[in-house]
Amino acid sequence: MTSRTGILLLVSGPSGSGKTTLCRRLADEQEAHYSISCTTRPPREGEVDGKDYHFLSKDDFKSRIDGGEFLEHAEVHQNYYGTLKSEVLNHLAAGTDVVMDIDVQGADQVRSCPDTQIKMALIDLFVMPPSEEELLARLTGRGTDAEEIIALRMENALEEMRHWPEYSYRLISATREEDYLNFKSLILAERLRVSRLL
Amino acid sequence: MTSRTGILLLVSGPSGSGKTTLCRRLADEQEAHYSISCTTRPPREGEVDGKDYHFLSKDDFKSRIDGGEFLEHAEVHQNYYGTLKSEVLNHLAAGTDVVMDIDVQGADQVRSCPDTQIKMALIDLFVMPPSEEELLARLTGRGTDAEEIIALRMENALEEMRHWPEYSYRLISATREEDYLNFKSLILAERLRVSRLL
Repeated sequence: MTSRTGILLLVSGPSGSGKTTLCRRLADEQEAHYSISCTTRPPREGEVDGKDYHFLSKDDFKSRIDGGEFLEHAEVHQNYYGTLKSEVLNHLAAGTDVVMDIDVQGADQVRSCPDTQIKMALIDLFVMPPSEEELLARLTGRGTDAEEIIALRMENALEEMRHWPEYSYRLISATREEDYLNFKSLILAERLRVSRLL
Repeated sequence: MTSRTGILLLVSGPSGSGKTTLCRRLADEQEAHYSISCTTRPPREGEVDGKDYHFLSKDDFKSRIDGGEFLEHAEVHQNYYGTLKSEVLNHLAAGTDVVMDIDVQGADQVRSCPDTQIKMALIDLFVMPPSEEELLARLTGRGTDAEEIIALRMENALEEMRHWPEYSYRLISATREEDYLNFKSLILAERLRVSRLL
């Protein structure tokens, strides 16, 4: 095995783009670390601490913000969300690739991070649904939600999608296997990059 | 289909690295154009004009050099070898990816080309055998050549291999399928690059 630094792959995209499935599968099949974020909102039915999120108290979260422990964080509807530096840096230093499912504001914060290790490691991808029609179908198909909830999701998704030109790579979702092959190619190619070799 | 500019993938590596097989297969399976170079040496048994090389007379070759028609060229053992710009530029402009099996001196000339279209299109890869032992086995295994011929090939290969740090990507050959998957990932990833979208 060639020794190299880890890759930090940021993946954004609206709900319904399929990004979370791609990230989880990549982590499983390519020995990458799936970055788990922290939140102060209570766990939902079936959510597992340390797998879906690290569930923190507000006091704990705030004192970690003050301690500079977060790579990125945000307050949404009176709850905090964020990614600890420790969730990323230790893995990268050990040569493990990290895949991070993150919204556009979070990705912006990670990109602005002055840490050289992060800057060297980072590549970013925006995943898009094939069309607005398909996006609407995916957002609708999730359950039996009210029309105004779906309309709000759609509005949020369209707003998020305006940010794709800020990313280095863009994947327009097609079929599950084709998407995964293209997605995986980002990590496989990046693993061959001479500037990452130690 | 998204409209984008073509990728120019330069692939170098010593004889026995397997680069030619990789390039030919990529061209076949990924609808890329395999760049055919020109030579003034006579065709060998079984070589087909326009498939293995464009066979040119010395006069024709020299007048094309004078006309600035070559992207790169060299004189080796009193014969000329080179790649015509037309073999590359038209394809790139049409959004077709071009794969170019090229030695380190040729790659250097292509990298130095001031043409913006070439500069934007270019990525480069060096393919290496897994070890010197395996390289020797591959160079020996080709036929019933004399020891000094094999020794010369080995010397040339080792000299060529010193240049890998000049490339952006490096592939250390493992198995045929693994090599191809990694090789293909370069093109698949590059096709997702936002800066190539029109």
